[in-house]
Amino acid sequence: MFEAKFQTFDAKADPAKGRERVAALRAELAKRKLDGFIVPRADEHQNEYVPACEERLGWLTGFAGSAGVAVVLADKAALFVDGRYTIAAREEVDPAVFAIEHLVEHPPEEWLAKNLKPGAAFGYDPARTTIGGVDKLKKACAKAGAALRAADSNPVDAIWADRPPPPLTPVALRDLRYAGEASEQKLARIREALQKDQIDAAVLSDPASVAWTFNIRGHDVAHTPLPLSWAIVPREGRPSLFVDGGKLTNAVRDALAKLAAVEEPAQFTAALKKIASGRTIRLDQATASQMLADAVEQSGGVVSKGADPVARLKAIKNAAEIAGMCEAHKRDGAALTRFLAWLDREAPGGKLTEIETVAALETFRRDTGKLKDISFPTIAGAGPDGAIVHYRVTEKSNRRLSPGELFLIDSGAQYEDGTTDVTRTVAIGDPSHEMRERFTLVLKGHIAIARAVFPEGTAGAQIDAFARAPLWAAGLDYDHGTGHGVGSYLSVHEGPARLSKLGTAALAAGMVLSNEPGYYKAGAYGIRTENLLLIVAAPPPTGAEKKLLAFETLTLAPIDRRLVLPSMLSLEELGWLDRYHARVREEIAPLVDAKTREWLVAATAPLMQIA
Amino acid sequence: MFEAKFQTFDAKADPAKGRERVAALRAELAKRKLDGFIVPRADEHQNEYVPACEERLGWLTGFAGSAGVAVVLADKAALFVDGRYTIAAREEVDPAVFAIEHLVEHPPEEWLAKNLKPGAAFGYDPARTTIGGVDKLKKACAKAGAALRAADSNPVDAIWADRPPPPLTPVALRDLRYAGEASEQKLARIREALQKDQIDAAVLSDPASVAWTFNIRGHDVAHTPLPLSWAIVPREGRPSLFVDGGKLTNAVRDALAKLAAVEEPAQFTAALKKIASGRTIRLDQATASQMLADAVEQSGGVVSKGADPVARLKAIKNAAEIAGMCEAHKRDGAALTRFLAWLDREAPGGKLTEIETVAALETFRRDTGKLKDISFPTIAGAGPDGAIVHYRVTEKSNRRLSPGELFLIDSGAQYEDGTTDVTRTVAIGDPSHEMRERFTLVLKGHIAIARAVFPEGTAGAQIDAFARAPLWAAGLDYDHGTGHGVGSYLSVHEGPARLSKLGTAALAAGMVLSNEPGYYKAGAYGIRTENLLLIVAAPPPTGAEKKLLAFETLTLAPIDRRLVLPSMLSLEELGWLDRYHARVREEIAPLVDAKTREWLVAATAPLMQIA
Repeated sequence: MFEAKFQTFDAKADPAKGRERVAALRAELAKRKLDGFIVPRADEHQNEYVPACEERLGWLTGFAGSAGVAVVLADKAALFVDGRYTIAAREEVDPAVFAIEHLVEHPPEEWLAKNLKPGAAFGYDPARTTIGGVDKLKKACAKAGAALRAADSNPVDAIWADRPPPPLTPVALRDLRYAGEASEQKLARIREALQKDQIDAAVLSDPASVAWTFNIRGHDVAHTPLPLSWAIVPREGRPSLFVDGGKLTNAVRDALAKLAAVEEPAQFTAALKKIASGRTIRLDQATASQMLADAVEQSGGVVSKGADPVARLKAIKNAAEIAGMCEAHKRDGAALTRFLAWLDREAPGGKLTEIETVAALETFRRDTGKLKDISFPTIAGAGPDGAIVHYRVTEKSNRRLSPGELFLIDSGAQYEDGTTDVTRTVAIGDPSHEMRERFTLVLKGHIAIARAVFPEGTAGAQIDAFARAPLWAAGLDYDHGTGHGVGSYLSVHEGPARLSKLGTAALAAGMVLSNEPGYYKAGAYGIRTENLLLIVAAPPPTGAEKKLLAFETLTLAPIDRRLVLPSMLSLEELGWLDRYHARVREEIAPLVDAKTREWLVAATAPLMQIA
Repeated sequence: MFEAKFQTFDAKADPAKGRERVAALRAELAKRKLDGFIVPRADEHQNEYVPACEERLGWLTGFAGSAGVAVVLADKAALFVDGRYTIAAREEVDPAVFAIEHLVEHPPEEWLAKNLKPGAAFGYDPARTTIGGVDKLKKACAKAGAALRAADSNPVDAIWADRPPPPLTPVALRDLRYAGEASEQKLARIREALQKDQIDAAVLSDPASVAWTFNIRGHDVAHTPLPLSWAIVPREGRPSLFVDGGKLTNAVRDALAKLAAVEEPAQFTAALKKIASGRTIRLDQATASQMLADAVEQSGGVVSKGADPVARLKAIKNAAEIAGMCEAHKRDGAALTRFLAWLDREAPGGKLTEIETVAALETFRRDTGKLKDISFPTIAGAGPDGAIVHYRVTEKSNRRLSPGELFLIDSGAQYEDGTTDVTRTVAIGDPSHEMRERFTLVLKGHIAIARAVFPEGTAGAQIDAFARAPLWAAGLDYDHGTGHGVGSYLSVHEGPARLSKLGTAALAAGMVLSNEPGYYKAGAYGIRTENLLLIVAAPPPTGAEKKLLAFETLTLAPIDRRLVLPSMLSLEELGWLDRYHARVREEIAPLVDAKTREWLVAATAPLMQIA
């Protein structure tokens, strides 16, 4: 009936190959006179989604998760994964080959400091390790009395016989009506930023920064429409764009050649070395590799490690991008509303599975005729699966949605005019009082963020706890940030601003952030309510001395009223929910079929009784 | 009538001497082949209050403020002060000799990068510059193509003929009934911390850390009862304490000799060099000087730059310290209540001056018979003076308290059992509606912190904005942190925890923090309501999954009810204020005279009307 085209449900992991592959790697390391090697899940851009040819960690270990690091020594090996993957890793990886360690609590550096032998030579791939990452490895090796050595090429590639080729998808120019600003203007603003920071040139190592700057999109990785590419933007002179010529039509190449010298990625390091001599070069601390820092320094340049100058410019959406995001959210809200109405009809029977819901939601989105991709694999967790924050359903894990359970669905879409990310938690049958109580606590936190007003310059870290306070008072919390930045037909996880205790970037009008507090009861259920927010200038109160910012909610879909305990909400909170639902009804009703509309009217009825 | 003994009101500044002193310094620098020198207001411990012999900045420039830096080059000189001192500095310093620059907006490093000539040799005092400070200077000199040189001795001392000798006040042992933990146990806990961090020894460069560790107190600087001293605590073996023998009686020396080798401060660097060889030495990043880092590294040791291991131990008060803080706050609350009652009788006449109020409050505190010192010079700001956050009244600035104005008084005491810090804002005559409105906004923020409940591990930065949210909603804010740590008969500003966007240290039960949101209308009035809080374990709600912390208010004194607009408070907020006032009445009434008691009963009457 419904079909998923942008995601699969197979359990990719294969623990069986680990033993022979690690043996082969050890032989390769011995040839290179290395006593050990580190294999992170990272490509040369520190991309969130990496192309198949960069999945060295998965190939070597069997581990299918999206974050992890393996360390292979001559006599032992370990796989480091974070809390969300520790259980999965034990099934996907041969425990006789890899010890499973907690990435955060016992990081690789700690393990190395203990397990490396004095005098050992430990290798890493400088093209796939950030400058900060190398610093940590250096310290670990120093503690153990071992030497850290950069490998000329990745030794995994030497033993990976059927390694796929790099992706070669076409690059498209982004229509100015979506981009809202010509590349020439963007480049001028980047140069201004360089001028202000007294930097001679910036390397764009994050392909999303390249995509934004040159108004291009591609499909080299899943779910984020970016072309793998690099750029160098000097304060004076012509920028260089490094992208495989096989991805460019003549028309696209001609357009890009007006903005920059278009060169092959293989020429990138040489070009960087050439421009770096005697100059100060900004390398992005989050994505630039040690190889780039070495290139700059070996050419007599000075590395200025800091934020990518594009990151902040890109985060502040212009009028066209905002209009696009609003359109995308209406379209997406209608698809999601169709899904929620369908779910309410079908789920009480107890026969629906998680995979069927994922396929249905993707189908409703494809029915819009505008879906380019999903923005990340849908998280659809019934009952206890909802408590697994980064749950991905597979044929093996697939559960039925059963009455009396909660169902959490976190999903998003890539449309040409905008990117969406939304989570709804739905009661299947009758929810327990505890479920409603905790859902309402999460909702109170969600509303606290949605209603927050704060001065310009405030950082996300300062307001993150507004979302937690109601849960805290009940002795509860959630172990993730409250929100992340979202790109405009680009990455669904975009810096530099976020609502998290680590979010030090100043919030500014035009930024788009998610608002997604949650609560997770292990083995029982998960709750999360997520809308995307646009930061806007707030109307100044009488006597105001500070310019204020506020949030406008972009996401349009009903929040399950059956899970709300109205008595726990203040009048202001009830007012917010009812106003939100009225807006959802008004905007979405014209976009859906009659049956869905009927459902929508009931689902958005006000909770506040007017006496 | 009333007299201040622990503070003065003279305007110490003298701009007249700057010219000749800078000329003498330039001659001295020329002799040493230096083209410039930096003079921070810092001693070898980065103390908040420095002894007279360390007041080089004031002596050289005339500037009387408590934070600033001068830079003297051959042809120009500048004084860098922060926002609170820019106006004062222009009067205290000869503008023909020193350009006045903003310490934060145009820091010395930026000025140096622009004004140093290529090839110049720029000097600094490595004993009075932190490791981080030297890094900044190094970068500035590199940018200008100049060389940074450590001076063997401070050149200011060579020209400062009548420089006072270092202080030599007696060291007293702290009674175990106040300290609550013997030094032997404290040393054992420090060693545990070193063991955990794999550090061989810690240098205690903060005299407050030395005082806490060895249970000693002194009077070498104003307002903080510490003896200037150093210590080295190795993970294994005997600690060394470096303190001038002239400060020790035989009995005190004997007691200390049981804990540590007691040596002269002059032996400290040599001892550090001796122990450092081949070892990892923790230097406190906030207070350790470059000289100490050099000593460690020149001896083949490794510097572990990080938090003083004592800072966190010291911040978490034990049962005896908490009991002492409670006693101190009752005593102090009674003195402050006497003062507030007196003020309400005297102030409406319009004749009282700021200085008279400071003298009166100090006298009421001395009347307790237990006052050892004030914990900082009282900030007593009538009308517009209240808007100057760090106002210090002088004979010159002294204002009368006039009807229709607000009066802000921020003061504290040092008692042997505890340290206090409290701010009250009082209406003189009839306050305006705006004053009441903004006072109530500040109070809402104060109550939000006082009522906050949060999980163990939460940092102050996460909840600081709880105090700001009510002001933010009105377009207002305050330009300082919400709270700082407070010592136990030690520094009134104590790390590592604080309520501020910079407060990354985890809060823990037993910490004492101030809660002091404010609002300042330049040229008109200032509002601040400050109580000290003790962090306690909160009773767990049913179903709680996290251990919760909450605050208990230590400070006991009425908050001016005449400034509260009850209609702006929620029932919960009104309830908090009424309960707080009931507690103040109950605790303080038995400790004050009948006239004060009568005033107190009225001043603490409930605001909530029970129907």
